[in-house]
Amino acid sequence: MTAPTTKTHCHPLGAHRVLEPVGAMPQDAWRIDNTPAAAQNEILCEVDVLNVDSASFRQIAEVCHFDAGRIGEHILQTVRERGKQHNPVTGSGGMFVGRVLEIGEALRDRIDLRAGDRIASLVSLSLTPLHLEAVREIDVATGRVWVRGMAILFESGIWARLPEDIDENVALAVLDVAGAPAQVPRLCSPGQTVLVIGAAGKSGLFSCAQAKARVGATGRVIGLVHDASAPPAQLLERAGLVDDVVEADARRALDVSGKIEAIAPQLADLTINCVNVPGTELSSILCTRDGGTIYFFSMSTSFTAAALGAEGIGRDVTMIIGNGYAKDHANIALQTLRDHPALHAYFNAKYKKL
Amino acid sequence: MTAPTTKTHCHPLGAHRVLEPVGAMPQDAWRIDNTPAAAQNEILCEVDVLNVDSASFRQIAEVCHFDAGRIGEHILQTVRERGKQHNPVTGSGGMFVGRVLEIGEALRDRIDLRAGDRIASLVSLSLTPLHLEAVREIDVATGRVWVRGMAILFESGIWARLPEDIDENVALAVLDVAGAPAQVPRLCSPGQTVLVIGAAGKSGLFSCAQAKARVGATGRVIGLVHDASAPPAQLLERAGLVDDVVEADARRALDVSGKIEAIAPQLADLTINCVNVPGTELSSILCTRDGGTIYFFSMSTSFTAAALGAEGIGRDVTMIIGNGYAKDHANIALQTLRDHPALHAYFNAKYKKL
Repeated sequence: MTAPTTKTHCHPLGAHRVLEPVGAMPQDAWRIDNTPAAAQNEILCEVDVLNVDSASFRQIAEVCHFDAGRIGEHILQTVRERGKQHNPVTGSGGMFVGRVLEIGEALRDRIDLRAGDRIASLVSLSLTPLHLEAVREIDVATGRVWVRGMAILFESGIWARLPEDIDENVALAVLDVAGAPAQVPRLCSPGQTVLVIGAAGKSGLFSCAQAKARVGATGRVIGLVHDASAPPAQLLERAGLVDDVVEADARRALDVSGKIEAIAPQLADLTINCVNVPGTELSSILCTRDGGTIYFFSMSTSFTAAALGAEGIGRDVTMIIGNGYAKDHANIALQTLRDHPALHAYFNAKYKKL
Repeated sequence: MTAPTTKTHCHPLGAHRVLEPVGAMPQDAWRIDNTPAAAQNEILCEVDVLNVDSASFRQIAEVCHFDAGRIGEHILQTVRERGKQHNPVTGSGGMFVGRVLEIGEALRDRIDLRAGDRIASLVSLSLTPLHLEAVREIDVATGRVWVRGMAILFESGIWARLPEDIDENVALAVLDVAGAPAQVPRLCSPGQTVLVIGAAGKSGLFSCAQAKARVGATGRVIGLVHDASAPPAQLLERAGLVDDVVEADARRALDVSGKIEAIAPQLADLTINCVNVPGTELSSILCTRDGGTIYFFSMSTSFTAAALGAEGIGRDVTMIIGNGYAKDHANIALQTLRDHPALHAYFNAKYKKL
């Protein structure tokens, strides 16, 4: 099979793979060319595992009544139709892990990667050309999908070589939320009060760990969780990743803000929203002081709900759209795991494939 | 008529007006109680004009084939159904101008406002209880809708007394986008390159004026417009609100970024997106340098398109959700108009009702 694009100009961002609409980029395209052959500036990978984005997987699982067979068929259908695992409802994707099969000749000598290397993609599946032969297994609890297939990374694509000291499935779970731990230290400073909404989820745990390290002894990290008796919520306190755990439904803005005000009357300087359910924008806003910052890492965030929510209550807060990419984010995330043995043990227990 | 809520606890954010779903806040509620009577901490206003949010009005106008009669019926229907002018498609609202009829007894002595004062609401119509008797007139070109009706402002509601030296319709048009000019000076500094996408629109013009004043002679403001021959685009250059005008369709990311790179190879330090059409996130990202900031003021912004767009091309940018509220934003916006006579003249020509 040859790439349909080898003879034409190959765009570093993959614009040459867009089929429709014409002029779109791979992420906003409805359909892209998933021919599994590397053009001159592309990397062809054999794909073993898809780590579907949490908001996307939740939506797919609900539609399929949490039936693994139907989830697999749903994913195959999306990829057949769009040439990528780009959930049309949530707009989000995920990432893959696999092995490099071929590196295009224009790229071969310019990057530190060889055929045979095991890597994880750090660009969203929502723009990654993907060709699936089969779905082999699905872990409904974690959103991991084992497949047989091939994917293309563009010249601008970001990837991480999988580390040797961390279990591969654990590393994948960590890299999936690598944006969060890399952003948190930029946003908070010593002595601040930081609220993490959805603290017991993957990105929440990492955000708490980074925030606690950054605000120090004079600062305070509050973790809001749905169920304080669940293992990850207990880990938060046991491992010292937070100062307080608060239990509430993040969608119930009045209840949430009442509980936070009760223990932190000045409200949060920084709120990090990591919840993968819609409707938590107002809770985030109500818990954040005037002049404070809210970092929305959740893919379920509604832009208008956030914008109008803050205006509606006249709260002068800076609201930031979570960017899955930050310089060195893969290394920062993996190092956070190494620095927190209890977190590492929890991830091993949850994500290590036996 | 009496407020259904006078005897119960009245929440400063208006939670007592929510009808469904239970536990929601007025903005995220599907339906709120629009009974036109002031509870103890509410302000009842007679409403003359609705200034429907630009993204919302565009959507309504398109559905109604730009027919004023059908647009009016559409608005009446939404308000009947939801108790507020909250566009279910765009999620956005707008603002109103009117006269204070009554101030609840718990609020009367605590605020600088009296019955009879003419004010503009500075909270979104998407959370404002609104009771309409009739739509009297619609200006399809500007999204202004003259009505007979009444509205409620909550204790937390923000309003501005209309200035005496500026025409009321002009002031209303300015206040509608007051968030933009107040935010821009916080985000840019002398010597920077600022790109304003949608520079010829209302919020775009104000953003350019503020950005140019802030970046100074060593900085550069580039205005991206859809049609460089249109009057507001020509005003940008004539009034010195920008250094360069670039013409492009903001949805065509590759075309836009090519044109910006051609005149500013280092890309923009700050990009302000003021376009009221969907699909311009990637253009904004491609035009902004690593480490730069993007301020999405447009209500058409998709959270996931922005988040995944930046990740997809590996661009380490800070993306901010436009907050319609910032401290003193009404005064800052009106002062920007006074400081720029050419801008004031343009607004008079466009929005002053003869």
